[in-house]
Amino acid sequence: MKPGLRFLIAAKRCEITELDQLARTSALVESVARLIHELQRERGLSNLYLASCGRRWADERSSQIGRSDAAQAGVLACFDDLDTEDGALRLGARLHARIAYALQGLDALVTLRQRIDAQATSPAQASADLARLISALLAVVFEAADSATEPLISRRLVALFNFMQGKEFAGQERATGSAMYAAGEPDIQGQQRLLHLIDSQERCLQTFGEFASPAMWARWLSAPQAEDLVRLERMRRIVSTTPPGQPLCGANSQDWFDACTSRIDTMRRIEEALVAELLGLCRERTACARLELEQLQAATPSAGPDADFFSRPTPTDLAASDKADSEHAYGHQLGRSMLDLVQDQARRLQAMEDELETVRSSLHERKLIERAKGLLMAHRQLSEEAAHKTMRQMAMSQNRRLVEVAEAVLAMADVLPSPR
Amino acid sequence: MKPGLRFLIAAKRCEITELDQLARTSALVESVARLIHELQRERGLSNLYLASCGRRWADERSSQIGRSDAAQAGVLACFDDLDTEDGALRLGARLHARIAYALQGLDALVTLRQRIDAQATSPAQASADLARLISALLAVVFEAADSATEPLISRRLVALFNFMQGKEFAGQERATGSAMYAAGEPDIQGQQRLLHLIDSQERCLQTFGEFASPAMWARWLSAPQAEDLVRLERMRRIVSTTPPGQPLCGANSQDWFDACTSRIDTMRRIEEALVAELLGLCRERTACARLELEQLQAATPSAGPDADFFSRPTPTDLAASDKADSEHAYGHQLGRSMLDLVQDQARRLQAMEDELETVRSSLHERKLIERAKGLLMAHRQLSEEAAHKTMRQMAMSQNRRLVEVAEAVLAMADVLPSPR
Repeated sequence: MKPGLRFLIAAKRCEITELDQLARTSALVESVARLIHELQRERGLSNLYLASCGRRWADERSSQIGRSDAAQAGVLACFDDLDTEDGALRLGARLHARIAYALQGLDALVTLRQRIDAQATSPAQASADLARLISALLAVVFEAADSATEPLISRRLVALFNFMQGKEFAGQERATGSAMYAAGEPDIQGQQRLLHLIDSQERCLQTFGEFASPAMWARWLSAPQAEDLVRLERMRRIVSTTPPGQPLCGANSQDWFDACTSRIDTMRRIEEALVAELLGLCRERTACARLELEQLQAATPSAGPDADFFSRPTPTDLAASDKADSEHAYGHQLGRSMLDLVQDQARRLQAMEDELETVRSSLHERKLIERAKGLLMAHRQLSEEAAHKTMRQMAMSQNRRLVEVAEAVLAMADVLPSPR
Repeated sequence: MKPGLRFLIAAKRCEITELDQLARTSALVESVARLIHELQRERGLSNLYLASCGRRWADERSSQIGRSDAAQAGVLACFDDLDTEDGALRLGARLHARIAYALQGLDALVTLRQRIDAQATSPAQASADLARLISALLAVVFEAADSATEPLISRRLVALFNFMQGKEFAGQERATGSAMYAAGEPDIQGQQRLLHLIDSQERCLQTFGEFASPAMWARWLSAPQAEDLVRLERMRRIVSTTPPGQPLCGANSQDWFDACTSRIDTMRRIEEALVAELLGLCRERTACARLELEQLQAATPSAGPDADFFSRPTPTDLAASDKADSEHAYGHQLGRSMLDLVQDQARRLQAMEDELETVRSSLHERKLIERAKGLLMAHRQLSEEAAHKTMRQMAMSQNRRLVEVAEAVLAMADVLPSPR
């Protein structure tokens, strides 16, 4: 076999390995999504339980904990599958580190539940603690999206991550509103937080729309949520406009919880469809790459005139000017020269990299914004919503993009005093 | 063992695998650097041979081809080492694709040499053909730098790549000047090309300075090249200011070739030192990571209060505000809690990623500029130097950075007609 062909085959094997890895990561994402969903329900019920001073919701919460535990067992089994000598080498160091952190959170969940049982924590605190655990789990999904090397799968993972993050904001909204409805009156922090969560949800769903398949975006838009949304919007209005300390009229905690839950359950169904689509895409791409591998292995390219190497455009030039051709890279390899095959593959890899670059820059921006927010929270003792608001106001007054403000905040990190 | 610790260990194993991979890639870079050096000498001699109409330099060229072949055998052996089932899985698809393309070039070298033997090509054409082969080999080095995941090794690879690219421009300068001195008179294309090559060399060496270790940068600055440079600058001035078609006075092709060669040989010695530094760095980092792995494997972290998970800053917040601490992440693990270990590692990985981002953005910019240049060359039938000049003029007149102009050029790719 010509040495060039051997390397083309090796390159294709790399792609297949990466696709196998993505399939495993996607299975992990599936189980994490299920666990997050159960933890979100548990958070809602724990809030109601605490706000009712333990008088109600105990049974519901207890059976929900059972469901959370079952989902957690699924995630742990998935982690175990990954944590083999073999898996360790394939997946990146950062994904493992994220998993290690999430596992710390799952360990800590046991004592958190005991504190809730004993009513030794407030609804707001319990809610914040569970949100942190969920955020550690979401970070695993984020990392999975960030490490994906196939552009379309990467896009779908970014869409899924944003949808899950949006759903988590919806879950926090449910918890925040539940606490106020259960207390019978709104408070100013709760109201501000609610508005922040609604706003954050909408931004996530917008990014979801950018990266989702048209089919899934349409499915989300046509999901049977209109009626729920009307009820929810009415209660959102009531809880955010009732003066703090005044009684909440026209809806009770049950109504709020049900409306939010109905919306979140709808989101969960879409989420399941997104995961199914993702897993199908992984299978499809892997099958396609395996077929291409077989074609390469069976290929008997003609040598072609050597001088072609010197006279043809280089793969880089081609990639810049000739993307459309890359669609036809495979399938008609009969009678093609070795150089044709090499150039096809180089072009295709370059096109893939260009697409990945687009997807990753969106993740990178999010990372910068989150970290700048974290910095402001740590150094100025701000709540998350206050930190976000500060940055948005800076962006507006300076007429800059949010990510530029985040970069400026992070650049100041070295001159700020340490928070500890 | 606590599951969290298992994942920390798995994450460390990933790092070690990546470092092993980098050591292999660096060994490949070493052999490629040697081959490029020999091909550069061969190009110089082939030019002199062609320009003298085959009357001189035949023996020198013939023994140089022997040295090129020996270096090529070294590269092929390195490629063979990589191309195992095992290697295919570790290194990326793109590196393999680059190697496949470079192998096509090495195949084509045989017939190119025959054309030169038969004087069936011009000095300029032979020079351009060999430059293209060298550029395919440099692309392998570029890809190695781009795929490195350890920030310091990545910086050194970027420094090395830029140094090698600068040396290649010096080699092209030697060939371009040799042709004019051997012909006894300058021509306008040759003169323009020479100025472009001098300018490109200087830009590469500047980038080299940004990413090299201070020791290597100092070594380059103090390299015994002053005397050579005086001679070279004098001859550069003569060949670029003598009116085209007028005889070149005050220096002959032998003087030019010797001065350039002396400079390139100095560069080669620095290049060897850079490679040695790189290989040493790989060994050092691997040893360090293995020690950290042993420490982790022997660690018996205390459980620590679970509530710490909820009360401590998240790893992301820490990474943004607390980089200095990451220096002390390892070495005093006694009495540390599991959460300490998890947070240390997350922080360290985040700091590594931040550094990598900086290095990669420099590579990314170069990639965009090269591709925009390739596009202009293909669509407007421009020479490389004319394409570069066009972009630089656009940048100056629009007061934008070169990379912004490149982005604008690439964005127009879709509306330009296909070059074929």
